[in-house]
Amino acid sequence: MIYLDNSATTRTDPEVIRVMVDVMEKVYGNPSSLHGIGAKAHRLVEEAREAVARTLGVRPREIVFTSGGTESNNLAIKGVAEQFVNRGRHLITTEVEHPSVYQAFRQLEERGWRVTYLPVDRLGRVSAEDVERALTDDTVLVSVMHVNNEVGTVQPVEEIGRILKSRPKVVFHVDAVQAFGKVELNPTRWGVDLLSLSGHKFHGPKGVGVLYVRESLRLNPLLAGGGQEDGFRSGTENVPGIAGLAKAAILAQQRREKARKWQRWKEELIQEVTSRLEGVVVNGDTTAEGGAPHILSLAFPGLKSEVIVHALERENVFVSSKSACSSKKETPSRVLTAMGLDDRTAIGAIRISMSHETLESDIQQCARALIRVIPELQRVMKGG
Amino acid sequence: MIYLDNSATTRTDPEVIRVMVDVMEKVYGNPSSLHGIGAKAHRLVEEAREAVARTLGVRPREIVFTSGGTESNNLAIKGVAEQFVNRGRHLITTEVEHPSVYQAFRQLEERGWRVTYLPVDRLGRVSAEDVERALTDDTVLVSVMHVNNEVGTVQPVEEIGRILKSRPKVVFHVDAVQAFGKVELNPTRWGVDLLSLSGHKFHGPKGVGVLYVRESLRLNPLLAGGGQEDGFRSGTENVPGIAGLAKAAILAQQRREKARKWQRWKEELIQEVTSRLEGVVVNGDTTAEGGAPHILSLAFPGLKSEVIVHALERENVFVSSKSACSSKKETPSRVLTAMGLDDRTAIGAIRISMSHETLESDIQQCARALIRVIPELQRVMKGG
Repeated sequence: MIYLDNSATTRTDPEVIRVMVDVMEKVYGNPSSLHGIGAKAHRLVEEAREAVARTLGVRPREIVFTSGGTESNNLAIKGVAEQFVNRGRHLITTEVEHPSVYQAFRQLEERGWRVTYLPVDRLGRVSAEDVERALTDDTVLVSVMHVNNEVGTVQPVEEIGRILKSRPKVVFHVDAVQAFGKVELNPTRWGVDLLSLSGHKFHGPKGVGVLYVRESLRLNPLLAGGGQEDGFRSGTENVPGIAGLAKAAILAQQRREKARKWQRWKEELIQEVTSRLEGVVVNGDTTAEGGAPHILSLAFPGLKSEVIVHALERENVFVSSKSACSSKKETPSRVLTAMGLDDRTAIGAIRISMSHETLESDIQQCARALIRVIPELQRVMKGG
Repeated sequence: MIYLDNSATTRTDPEVIRVMVDVMEKVYGNPSSLHGIGAKAHRLVEEAREAVARTLGVRPREIVFTSGGTESNNLAIKGVAEQFVNRGRHLITTEVEHPSVYQAFRQLEERGWRVTYLPVDRLGRVSAEDVERALTDDTVLVSVMHVNNEVGTVQPVEEIGRILKSRPKVVFHVDAVQAFGKVELNPTRWGVDLLSLSGHKFHGPKGVGVLYVRESLRLNPLLAGGGQEDGFRSGTENVPGIAGLAKAAILAQQRREKARKWQRWKEELIQEVTSRLEGVVVNGDTTAEGGAPHILSLAFPGLKSEVIVHALERENVFVSSKSACSSKKETPSRVLTAMGLDDRTAIGAIRISMSHETLESDIQQCARALIRVIPELQRVMKGG
């Protein structure tokens, strides 16, 4: 089985599972309880917070644990909007964000906020100048993803951060769910105020995520209640999940080196497929500088991505049609459309995504499977 | 070790851990992925949905999985308020709700909603007549907990449901986090529209909960994004957590019988303690009809609950000062104050809470520990 859908989710690392089982069996207390059983759980959460903070080069108290990337993004965006409602009601984002960012902004629009959705170029990249031009006196938030989840293009986060440094009243949020462990992240140096991570995207558990919140920034909480996570996120802490995520973050950090090979494998796959197949469209920026190494989006105009996914599955290769989060919708990808692809091309896109478990031979087999499968499907579509 | 803080959290059941490990190892796909690895995860989630629905006597499509009780409560309350903002802006709840309900209402007050917080009697019970009297043409939501988390008093949920049946535009939410597996729950018959559960309160995993949403009711989602959970709750499903919660729900249902014994043990403990100690105050309704069998709140005026908790810990008995979610705050319990307790009494309250793992000898040892510890603490406080 060749699993190349790691941007949808990754296999939970056996070491992560071990940590979680250990915690579930031995440290089942509620971190808020006053007694020793609670204190032990509390200590575990704080150790996890320190470990995650180290991987990001930030302070432990800047780490908020959430239930995942979607919650981190919703908390960041709505939390800023509600917190600074009297400062301004204008928000800036891009047309290619993940649904958990995009839909959070749509909800805020319904509630009276104004949102600017910046366009992207053919590679899916927003321009920092466009961000600067979109700023008004009323702007309270800029939210730009780091690595695009459908095509892998890296956004000019550092450059945007530089522009926003002279605008201290504008909060800068970065959805780094697809970036962590794959490309360099430096929220402090880049002037990022809020940064979202999701455990299950780097071999951690599902149901747990992180929001980095720059010190002294306050947010209106999405989940109100007992005041856990310094008031940012109430609810009994998912202690085993948090410990598992911390373990996964440490492992991801150690494995960062592997990401270099992916770039080469990706380039070889592109080379192989484009030379052997007709009408292949490579989406996004696939260079080492402009794209994340683990994601590759290919389109085959005239075919349907679902059909390609299933045909590859019969070859034992598992890839994705656009992003998992919207793969069951029949419409062409909003991201690919924003990049200027016509519907016919966007509808025929698949995403190949790697992890540290991917082997070079997996990518080669994927290339061979595509070369077998695609011409056949193209013949069928032509009624041949 | 005698763990009597089961209302804070329970030990994860070994069978639940086994299910979770099995899922993590074998079914790591993203339920939204189109291929077979995703489909397998999707099926597991749907099986879990059916299992949980059965334990509540509701339809599978009425079950929404969340990250826990706090999220379920926040989603229910804010989800209704935002969804029906044009229908009305008046909300009704009680003074003794869990912080995740109470604080959600406080947020809505800040955003322009009017909230009626109904008082309770000396036992902590709200009157259904008061609910009826508080209803206005503008009321969109009534939220009343089932079992009080600090004192165990059962609210007249069935009666309130009967009153609200003639008011189809008023949504009825019940926080049943402390009720599930301990007392009878019948949301359909009682006319409950929304009902919250939390996995870790019944030996399930932390970080996963349930919101029952009556068919045809829509909510404005708290977590917007990929549209998972029928649009009620976006975010990649916590597949192992959901499977673990379903397992725990089935086990809790099977173990419901055990709850009968707790009532007897509780009565014996009250009898023992009140006959042997001076100045014990028993809080809440401790009858089989009016209280949940697993929770007992005792107050020792003049002592501080933290001090009692730590003294009992030295006797190897682990109990709680008020609720875990607010146990680190120095103020007297809002719930006990609402019940009319003076500060001196409220500050000296502890909560003893059982689960199916509790033995009769645990309760007897707890009684003995109290009888040893309390007079000593009382002597110290009197400066003796």
